[in-house]
Amino acid sequence: MTVSRRVLVLVRLSPASLAVLGARFHLLDLHASPLPMDAFLAAAAADNDDPPRAALIPGHGSVCVDAAFLDAVPSLRCVLFNSAGLDHVDLLECERRGVGVANATGVYSADVADYAVGLLIDVLPRVSASDRHVRRGHWPERGGHGFTLGRKRVGIIGLGSIGSAIATRLEAFNCAVSYHSRRQKSNVPYCYYPTARDLAECSDVLVVTCPLTAETRHIVDRRVLDALGSGGVVVNVARGANVDEVELVRALAEGRITGAGLDVFEHEPDVPPELLAMENVVLTHHQAAFTPESVADLDRLFVDNLEAFFRGSPLLTPVVVYD
Amino acid sequence: MTVSRRVLVLVRLSPASLAVLGARFHLLDLHASPLPMDAFLAAAAADNDDPPRAALIPGHGSVCVDAAFLDAVPSLRCVLFNSAGLDHVDLLECERRGVGVANATGVYSADVADYAVGLLIDVLPRVSASDRHVRRGHWPERGGHGFTLGRKRVGIIGLGSIGSAIATRLEAFNCAVSYHSRRQKSNVPYCYYPTARDLAECSDVLVVTCPLTAETRHIVDRRVLDALGSGGVVVNVARGANVDEVELVRALAEGRITGAGLDVFEHEPDVPPELLAMENVVLTHHQAAFTPESVADLDRLFVDNLEAFFRGSPLLTPVVVYD
Repeated sequence: MTVSRRVLVLVRLSPASLAVLGARFHLLDLHASPLPMDAFLAAAAADNDDPPRAALIPGHGSVCVDAAFLDAVPSLRCVLFNSAGLDHVDLLECERRGVGVANATGVYSADVADYAVGLLIDVLPRVSASDRHVRRGHWPERGGHGFTLGRKRVGIIGLGSIGSAIATRLEAFNCAVSYHSRRQKSNVPYCYYPTARDLAECSDVLVVTCPLTAETRHIVDRRVLDALGSGGVVVNVARGANVDEVELVRALAEGRITGAGLDVFEHEPDVPPELLAMENVVLTHHQAAFTPESVADLDRLFVDNLEAFFRGSPLLTPVVVYD
Repeated sequence: MTVSRRVLVLVRLSPASLAVLGARFHLLDLHASPLPMDAFLAAAAADNDDPPRAALIPGHGSVCVDAAFLDAVPSLRCVLFNSAGLDHVDLLECERRGVGVANATGVYSADVADYAVGLLIDVLPRVSASDRHVRRGHWPERGGHGFTLGRKRVGIIGLGSIGSAIATRLEAFNCAVSYHSRRQKSNVPYCYYPTARDLAECSDVLVVTCPLTAETRHIVDRRVLDALGSGGVVVNVARGANVDEVELVRALAEGRITGAGLDVFEHEPDVPPELLAMENVVLTHHQAAFTPESVADLDRLFVDNLEAFFRGSPLLTPVVVYD
């Protein structure tokens, strides 16, 4: 018997991606199956001769990789995510069982950084708001809206590959970049603040790019929003729960901050209804990362990580090393 | 009798701007007058003792500074514009009469450059389109829309202060920048193309930033759009008439180009109705330049140019030197 190359596919893949991966691996695709998730996993696990040893998992949404999930398909030795963030994964449990974990770090950094800058420019001079007016047949009086990006103090929460790419871009707009992260980085020209609140106090704009962990849940809370102040703007391209959404909505409604550009929400796909009528927010559907280019890069990374796993080599983007 | 400091104000100024300028000059404000334009100009000109010698003129819109206008207020020796572009001015006629002309070059460059990049990012991953979906209560499936900015070939038409600022910003996004202008610039690291069509042929994105002149009217025409091709995007932050709007609409409708970000239109405030229903365009109301910061900078420039004029010094941003 050759080593199984069966792969559980819980990610929704495009036909093109299915073709790329299907040419090399035996895919068990949840979205091509009539079974609901539990039954689908049980059926896959029941194949005693050749159960799946690897799985492709959506980085956010319905699938939580925890002890119960790993119990359901005990043959799994490698789980690969289509996201950089791994907030739906019990990493300690994976480590305890020797299940390798890889994320898609780097694949999206440039796209998400571009998008964050786009959201910021969109909020400031209100591109989307103007687009709405024009599509309704209006041509508003001009003047006095938005603000100039140059010389604005932008505080980036999380200076990983996405945060660093945002910083590079904003320097070209003559923004003054600072950051907060768990620890100060060496070889970084930006001012470091040991807390999000300190950063907010010295910023006109906060851009949230950090992974969602127990420590970063609601890292932007009421105190941080108040430190940012009434001229402040929040851009979130990380995870909705990095920001206390109830407090964010309240701060926007009460004019305690001036605007927000949000690609992520705490309870996706639900968006707080109060936001929908606000003119000073830009609301998009967690789409920063998904350009055709990054989808193709992700396919390549899936293939490379699976090939590495099936031949017993180290994963390319390991978060937990498999046994 | 001291030299008159009467200034004809045809620009619509904010109360703050009126206060700044009114503290130093005697303003004759069209927008505070019950008279229509013709009667207002006639009344101003009829003051034989102290007629206005300077005027603040909107850079686009209803006022055309030509022989008839200058005949209406023959005392004028200096006209100051609130725009960089001067497409509504007969510069030769001003020169012949010794009427000084100054524009607002530089005031808006950074803002307009920021905005152009914002429009481009908005068109590519469809920020405004997603915002519309979310506000309607939708949360579309993701994947495959838009495209990555990095490695895209961006052709800039007009490499003045705005075009150069756009180029600097896009370099930080890892775009490959080229340009077309009347003549090749020295000390510029970007590839030069002698025609707009050549530039379009080698570009994924065309950004229009040139002044509107007889030569640049419809500089983006059907041939240029066809050279850009079906993956191409047009961003216009210059003047609507720099682009042949009928051909642009046709190319978008027929999928001969992929999208457009337009802050300007050929017949403002009229926007071609076909555009209003398209998902692959971003339409804003000629607002790129008007942040509070640039409005304040403009007030300062008006004051400085007027002070220079009234004391007989050279204008700070002269296009035509006054006698």
